[in-house]
Amino acid sequence: MSDDNKNDEDFSSFSCPLPRLNHDSVQLAHGSGGKLSAELLEKLFLPRFGNETLDRLEDQAVLTLPPGRLAFSTDTFVVDPIFFPGGNIGDLAINGTVNDIAMAGANPLYLSVGFVLEEGLPLEALHRILLSMEEAAWGAGVQIVTGDTKVVPRGSCDKIFINTSGIGVVPEGVNMSVASLPAGDKIILSGSVADHGMAIMTCRQGLSFQSGIESDTAALNSLVADMLMVSKEIRTMRDPTRGGLATTLNEFARSAATGIVVEQEKVLVNSDVLGACEILGIDPLSVANEGKLVAVVPAAVAEDIVQVMRQHPLGRQAMVIGEVVAEHPGVVALQTALGVSQVLDMPVGEQLPRIC
Amino acid sequence: MSDDNKNDEDFSSFSCPLPRLNHDSVQLAHGSGGKLSAELLEKLFLPRFGNETLDRLEDQAVLTLPPGRLAFSTDTFVVDPIFFPGGNIGDLAINGTVNDIAMAGANPLYLSVGFVLEEGLPLEALHRILLSMEEAAWGAGVQIVTGDTKVVPRGSCDKIFINTSGIGVVPEGVNMSVASLPAGDKIILSGSVADHGMAIMTCRQGLSFQSGIESDTAALNSLVADMLMVSKEIRTMRDPTRGGLATTLNEFARSAATGIVVEQEKVLVNSDVLGACEILGIDPLSVANEGKLVAVVPAAVAEDIVQVMRQHPLGRQAMVIGEVVAEHPGVVALQTALGVSQVLDMPVGEQLPRIC
Repeated sequence: MSDDNKNDEDFSSFSCPLPRLNHDSVQLAHGSGGKLSAELLEKLFLPRFGNETLDRLEDQAVLTLPPGRLAFSTDTFVVDPIFFPGGNIGDLAINGTVNDIAMAGANPLYLSVGFVLEEGLPLEALHRILLSMEEAAWGAGVQIVTGDTKVVPRGSCDKIFINTSGIGVVPEGVNMSVASLPAGDKIILSGSVADHGMAIMTCRQGLSFQSGIESDTAALNSLVADMLMVSKEIRTMRDPTRGGLATTLNEFARSAATGIVVEQEKVLVNSDVLGACEILGIDPLSVANEGKLVAVVPAAVAEDIVQVMRQHPLGRQAMVIGEVVAEHPGVVALQTALGVSQVLDMPVGEQLPRIC
Repeated sequence: MSDDNKNDEDFSSFSCPLPRLNHDSVQLAHGSGGKLSAELLEKLFLPRFGNETLDRLEDQAVLTLPPGRLAFSTDTFVVDPIFFPGGNIGDLAINGTVNDIAMAGANPLYLSVGFVLEEGLPLEALHRILLSMEEAAWGAGVQIVTGDTKVVPRGSCDKIFINTSGIGVVPEGVNMSVASLPAGDKIILSGSVADHGMAIMTCRQGLSFQSGIESDTAALNSLVADMLMVSKEIRTMRDPTRGGLATTLNEFARSAATGIVVEQEKVLVNSDVLGACEILGIDPLSVANEGKLVAVVPAAVAEDIVQVMRQHPLGRQAMVIGEVVAEHPGVVALQTALGVSQVLDMPVGEQLPRIC
């Protein structure tokens, strides 16, 4: 598959052959806490994630953190399929939790990883996932310091689920909150929407080869750090994952009890993605993203922030897409290119489960 | 079932009827990030776990911690059955991570919770689990400050999996490590072994009603705090979960490259548990516990620590069960009542998966 080849090239510095093991696939005893668990840990996990803290092999990490408030977040990844164009469940799990921490303006430092493995999962697949996790953690500058592995019998889970939890430190002077968003504030979107969700959906439909759609999975913490260099007055940030941009904007409007107006033409959708959305009858604004952020910022700094974002590889298409208004509190209005204004509601249920 | 009745009585202060919801069971859209997700959050999760931090409904918690090193741990719970004599997957998930943090001598403060729910899980069952989590968190003095919920289609997981990750603060002067365990140090066990694992196994065999065996699931942090009041010189502690006491002692011996001798008759096993182990051909020393701890302490303070432990409801049967020796590094020797010494090895694979 061409997507796999692409990944192999990208990850060349993080590829290595599967170590010699006693089995080709996950056995129940790999999760027992006994000898086979120890083999899995020593031959597959530690060579990828090993560091001074993890190597202690205690049931917890003990860490000395820099001063500051702590940001703490968790996410479980159950994406289906586990390998998809642009990534796999491994890098998705690292980037997802890194982003949740970064959205508080915090500097992500340490992650925990909890695996649930299905008996029979090929160890080669697990190894590829671990390599992607290693690269993603390296790219985001975070360490995996504690972990847990459970194995369940065939049929009790679907291949692999990964929970990542993470901690970071919020810099002095950064105080993001969605509680108050003053009218006149600008809303910035870092790039095109719906790439991740449509990569998964077209992959499931067997269309991924033709579509050219790739997940946007990426760690946003360095982009956030650049934005905070411009101004620490960013009011709030969120990465529009499940439920997409529509859900994030509605959450902003409801939490702050304010109105939001968005110009539809400012919200970029890649042409392949838009085509797939039209074929499948899906609104791209309610589709999951995994490498985009929405920020609400004071009008005075909005353009400066956008300019800095555009210097960053993950913010090249950053744009002010709308603003906070005093009218229609709790409601998001979408203005079309024809000047028509319509309510952008929160989706009732996502089109497909297991998108992340 | 008598066990359920017992639980209902114990948990009376944490019981309340299932709130009125639009469905009786978990729907895929409950995990979508849209309106049904919000209903689940507002009607089931927040009434149980709500606190100032969680109520902000951000993708991460921002916390101000007391000074000190941070202990960070994670565990995913996939126990089958989800309700068992003495507890359920909910209190097990809270107590398990509280204990992993407490084993560093740390004071557990905050937990994250990540749910994977199977489509079709009765919401009444989820509600009972949440009530148990609420009570367990209250009992352990920890707050749930951030969370995540995924729903997977029927057949893609077995009912419910719960990841909990947690953070705590290590008091000044506490420096536990398994790296160095001097010969002459005493090994303390807080009570009888194999209760949790045998409660699960007999429950699966349909024998739980007759057996009277109950899980020992409990939060050990207040017992640990009492022990540290006697001496901060405790070398290391661990709760012998998967793989049981045999695994924990072997991990100690290998990590510290030292020998360990344990007197078999000092290791208590409740008579019902011993009977079930004999029937099923299982060594109780390799069966999981969920409310016991093993500590290695200097000989000079061992008796004082044991006396204080015996004042605590979770340490009434605390006892010195053995000691660290310079001989046979890396090997645990079990001395029987007849004076015979045999090697206590690490179990190769646990007898049954999904014990926690």
